[in-house]
Amino acid sequence: MTAAAVGAGTPHADGPDWLGAMFAARSVAIVGASDNPIKLSGRPIAYLKRFGYAGRIFPVNPGRAQVQGLDAYPDLASIGEVPDLVMLMVDAASTPDAVRECGRLGVPVVIASAAGFAETGEEGARLQEDLRQAAQETGIRVLGPNCLGLMGMAAHLPITFTSALDEGDSLPVGSTALISQSGAFGTFLFSAARMAGVEFSHYANTGNEVDLDVVEILSALCERPEVTTLSAYFEGLSDGRRLAELGRKALLADKPLIVAKAGRSTDGARAVSSHTASLAGSDEVFKDICEQYGVVAVESINDIVDMMVMFDQGRRLAGRRLTILTMSGGAAALMTDVANANGIAVNEWEPEWRERMAATIPSFGSTANPIDLTAELIRDPEILRGALQVAIDHPGTDVACVLVGNAQTGSEQLIEIIAAASARSAKPVVVVWTGNNRRQLDALAAHRIARFDDPARAARALGALARHGEHRARLVGSDVPAPELAGRRLPEWLAEAAAQGLEHLDELRAGQLLSAWDVPVVQGMAVSDEDSAWAAARQVGLPCVAKLLSAHVAHKSDVGGVLLGLSTQAEVRDAFTRLWALGEQLAIPDGRVMVQPMLDTGPGDVELIVGAHRDLSFGPVVTIGLGGVLVEVLEDSVTLLPPFGREEARRALSRLRGASLLGDFRGRGERDVDAVLDLLVGFSRAAVDLRDDVVEMELNPVVVHAAGQGVLALDALVRLAPT
Amino acid sequence: MTAAAVGAGTPHADGPDWLGAMFAARSVAIVGASDNPIKLSGRPIAYLKRFGYAGRIFPVNPGRAQVQGLDAYPDLASIGEVPDLVMLMVDAASTPDAVRECGRLGVPVVIASAAGFAETGEEGARLQEDLRQAAQETGIRVLGPNCLGLMGMAAHLPITFTSALDEGDSLPVGSTALISQSGAFGTFLFSAARMAGVEFSHYANTGNEVDLDVVEILSALCERPEVTTLSAYFEGLSDGRRLAELGRKALLADKPLIVAKAGRSTDGARAVSSHTASLAGSDEVFKDICEQYGVVAVESINDIVDMMVMFDQGRRLAGRRLTILTMSGGAAALMTDVANANGIAVNEWEPEWRERMAATIPSFGSTANPIDLTAELIRDPEILRGALQVAIDHPGTDVACVLVGNAQTGSEQLIEIIAAASARSAKPVVVVWTGNNRRQLDALAAHRIARFDDPARAARALGALARHGEHRARLVGSDVPAPELAGRRLPEWLAEAAAQGLEHLDELRAGQLLSAWDVPVVQGMAVSDEDSAWAAARQVGLPCVAKLLSAHVAHKSDVGGVLLGLSTQAEVRDAFTRLWALGEQLAIPDGRVMVQPMLDTGPGDVELIVGAHRDLSFGPVVTIGLGGVLVEVLEDSVTLLPPFGREEARRALSRLRGASLLGDFRGRGERDVDAVLDLLVGFSRAAVDLRDDVVEMELNPVVVHAAGQGVLALDALVRLAPT
Repeated sequence: MTAAAVGAGTPHADGPDWLGAMFAARSVAIVGASDNPIKLSGRPIAYLKRFGYAGRIFPVNPGRAQVQGLDAYPDLASIGEVPDLVMLMVDAASTPDAVRECGRLGVPVVIASAAGFAETGEEGARLQEDLRQAAQETGIRVLGPNCLGLMGMAAHLPITFTSALDEGDSLPVGSTALISQSGAFGTFLFSAARMAGVEFSHYANTGNEVDLDVVEILSALCERPEVTTLSAYFEGLSDGRRLAELGRKALLADKPLIVAKAGRSTDGARAVSSHTASLAGSDEVFKDICEQYGVVAVESINDIVDMMVMFDQGRRLAGRRLTILTMSGGAAALMTDVANANGIAVNEWEPEWRERMAATIPSFGSTANPIDLTAELIRDPEILRGALQVAIDHPGTDVACVLVGNAQTGSEQLIEIIAAASARSAKPVVVVWTGNNRRQLDALAAHRIARFDDPARAARALGALARHGEHRARLVGSDVPAPELAGRRLPEWLAEAAAQGLEHLDELRAGQLLSAWDVPVVQGMAVSDEDSAWAAARQVGLPCVAKLLSAHVAHKSDVGGVLLGLSTQAEVRDAFTRLWALGEQLAIPDGRVMVQPMLDTGPGDVELIVGAHRDLSFGPVVTIGLGGVLVEVLEDSVTLLPPFGREEARRALSRLRGASLLGDFRGRGERDVDAVLDLLVGFSRAAVDLRDDVVEMELNPVVVHAAGQGVLALDALVRLAPT
Repeated sequence: MTAAAVGAGTPHADGPDWLGAMFAARSVAIVGASDNPIKLSGRPIAYLKRFGYAGRIFPVNPGRAQVQGLDAYPDLASIGEVPDLVMLMVDAASTPDAVRECGRLGVPVVIASAAGFAETGEEGARLQEDLRQAAQETGIRVLGPNCLGLMGMAAHLPITFTSALDEGDSLPVGSTALISQSGAFGTFLFSAARMAGVEFSHYANTGNEVDLDVVEILSALCERPEVTTLSAYFEGLSDGRRLAELGRKALLADKPLIVAKAGRSTDGARAVSSHTASLAGSDEVFKDICEQYGVVAVESINDIVDMMVMFDQGRRLAGRRLTILTMSGGAAALMTDVANANGIAVNEWEPEWRERMAATIPSFGSTANPIDLTAELIRDPEILRGALQVAIDHPGTDVACVLVGNAQTGSEQLIEIIAAASARSAKPVVVVWTGNNRRQLDALAAHRIARFDDPARAARALGALARHGEHRARLVGSDVPAPELAGRRLPEWLAEAAAQGLEHLDELRAGQLLSAWDVPVVQGMAVSDEDSAWAAARQVGLPCVAKLLSAHVAHKSDVGGVLLGLSTQAEVRDAFTRLWALGEQLAIPDGRVMVQPMLDTGPGDVELIVGAHRDLSFGPVVTIGLGGVLVEVLEDSVTLLPPFGREEARRALSRLRGASLLGDFRGRGERDVDAVLDLLVGFSRAAVDLRDDVVEMELNPVVVHAAGQGVLALDALVRLAPT
């Protein structure tokens, strides 16, 4: 029996074969199962029984004939059939060979639960490498090691020893998948979400990820029709580009991907030459690329649960217009503030619709929006029935929110009214029930209506729902390319330069290199004597600039290697002499002088800084910043995963805090944004094509002229990969 | 019997007399009390009985001999004694005369509950004015109208019809006071906080605030020893300066003041001449002045509850160093991220302390901080006992946080360990219990230990606790003046200018005016013919600047009224002619020309913008922004309530996002911050002294030279108050 054969027989027609064997296993074996249902190694069988797993359970325990009332087997081979899924509850040292035994038998998926691998030091790391080899040799898909197991809800399959299942005896089947690298934290998230009424389809803890990781499992689950929301927690991210691919895939499938990641700002010590690379810390890169691919990045347990609740109601927003029906003007005012801050409008209603609303609410209420139903609602919950229907019918309402609190008497009636109105509507209906509200929130969860205990949390979750729709609209049929790495085209001399052991290209070569991707860098002429310097100056035009040209000086102006505004023959000749002497003084082997035109930058011209560097997770990334002081003082920059298209580049520019400088700032006309987009798209392709050969490159500054006048990089830095 | 006499007899020796009559009334009358305990007008008596009020209750109801089992009276006069507190549950129209009747009897405090006053329109506004007069005539302190009443916990006095008391039969006595302008929202906050285990000392709803308002009640409660935390919700703020005074008083008493305010960004339509006034929207002003006076401004129900929970544990932070003891590395990493973002450090421990910790925790845990106790903690809760003691003993730990989740088995033991350790410590001990946690959070509340369900929320609350301590340290014995408005000293010609109906002062006069407060504005000479223009130019030095000088042109450069860099006699004469012609063309009655020196601004000079305007709530406020593009593109500004001292001004500068420009930016040496502080302090006094005469003034730009070189405002705008 092979893995493929097992997969073909599982009920999981969508997604890879291993997925069905994991989450919908028809039979499971637990190696090292304890008879004691309280012990960690006893819990999986206790849970499988308690939560009603209908498949076959094979305890493997050479010391016992029975385990928790089930016939036990001395080893896997004795079972007489090949289980879909094997959970190994043996110690770390025994785990690799246990996987090899599973391989001999043809088991498709193994959960390696033991701790004591790479997380404990060198010896553990060796064991983990052995386990990796065992997985590769056998072709078995391995979850773990150092993991608590998984739950497949539809199959009533909690094959785990998580303490989250300490209590209760049913696992409702929902449509949210949660895959967590961390065991304990995944358990916390699972329980917190369950407390908020979220129902899951799949749960897994990936632990040390010797084989299956969070991204691969979610990517497979994204293809399953019963999964509508994907969520993840991880600490490290070995290949961020795969997360971006998953984000794109999930967005195209209209399945939100909610991601919490801990361990920000950890690699600030990275040594970098370029300014953009130091600006874009790994956390900023992560957030910006999540934004690029529509991944919902969150940073608290409440946030992740709120997003799950909001997305789990299933409906999407057609626009950003919220109508609030409230029994407290104060709570509604607060919600309006936070909604506005999240880009959600609470527009005043049109007179004719205010009249229709007025017919349903108390005379001393307000129909402006927020619509104040007043505390009268407690005495007469029926007020809500008419008002909510009018709100849903109102064409200028994309989402209606009922905002109440306490209201113990009458709460059943209010919830019935909300549920009935929501059932008749295609628009989302959201409820904020503040104060004393546990019973009410649970009842709303049963109706799968998005519910919150705080208007601010609801407003933030609505913002995420709106952004999801907009990301999707942007991605579908737009120029957002898949984050793929295509073939390269490189000039031969680049390999020669690398072979010479150079760390940087000189400025002339850097500009030549980037021009191959249509990135406009100011041209110059390299000269080696005074006469040719003056000849070059006449050719480029006066006044001109002379610079020290060398692959060994990355920051020329820091050493006095840039002389500006040379207007006469004497000045040019003098500049040459000084720069040549500087080169000799610095003992630079390749020291030459470059003559460039002195470029007119108008008073309205804007300076950009554009760079690429290798992020530890994502590989090559492109960072864009605006203006000298703006980027330095305020660290105003945005990072994108290359390659990207013009619309992506345009969005990135608009996200800069100083974006208005590219527009008609102070009435001086718009800057040439089209030319900026061309430059950025070319630079992004260069970053991809050069990913193996160049570790950093930077254009600083890029001068952006008035619309139609183009852009030009005045300096280019290219740092080569060590050979 | 007079109010004073009543007050003297109450148990409230601290605070004004009315306070005792309100929250510790020995007897209460309810006018219009219903026999039906479910009806709004029946609820106060039902609640008083249910929650064990021990004072005398007098129902006033001419239609019944008994109300809810108590002897009823046909009117207040028939009672035979003067109650401390009367709640009027009569309609709006009857309320003013009912207050007058209370006045004749000598009742000190009345709750006017009826709605139908200013919130309903003109007729209601007239009734409210009548009620205000009744309060003034009688000297009675009135709470309301349009209010749900109040609760004094120590007296078991819930004299209210809020639905928050629908359920339960005990009101625990805590030390947090909550005063809310809004009835419904106050109720939501109260219930949400009670659900989180917060115990209150006082609660009141002030409604339309015809007499007593949120600030006055909290100011009185601030003097009560049993109150340790003050909290408020309001929508409008009629006199923000009183809130600042309360903030200062509360901070000096070490009683945090937590404030939620709704209705931000409402008056963006206000017409203003100066740039700073348009920058400082009312919400920014509110937030900045809260920051100035240490008021904890929050914007969600969760936030206000979290702050109450954090402050209610009673202890303060000696520093910002957090040690986390966790059973989940992931949750701790997430908490570390949010803690860092809130200025709380999670420092790695010293080797010798790591060794001490290692002796108490599992060998595969981590002692670095966050200290990982591992999931082993579920099996052996005793691990926490030793570890928590070491953390508390560790001198580099200002606060210890225990971060756990689920752990149903063993939770009682964990909580006992935490409570015991906390009881032995003077440092705060904070608990984050995530996942399934209702029982555990309730148990921790009983021990008055700060507890949260989300590491991010705990981290934010810790940030607020740290800031409170730092605000207090800053205020005590510093130069932060009380926000008092002292006497004025004004030149006589200012009144003359106002009498002429001028809207603005001309630039020369504006500079002269501000020089009275030692604000350095560039001097100039007013001239009316070419010859004197040239004479003035020679006097100020060449090159010079010529400007159109008029009280009627606020923005000279917009009309071409500023000519720079005049170097020759011809240029000066020509400039005079052009400006004079411009004045005639604009038909300005007072058009003259001003000649000023052309000032050298070095390449490292920084420009500030400094303005004052009248905020709707706070009156005169001073706004400071940095740099031309920085302030315009990024709206980088900070607002302070004047007068303020040098340290306040220094803090404000440091809060600008572009603050580093004033330091040794790009190695060009520090700017003259001392001179900036002098200018700001003088300007703040001017803003106070001129508050009745000037509605706006602005210095733009203020050039800040290198350290020791001073500052100089290059233009001054002063807009006069209409006479």
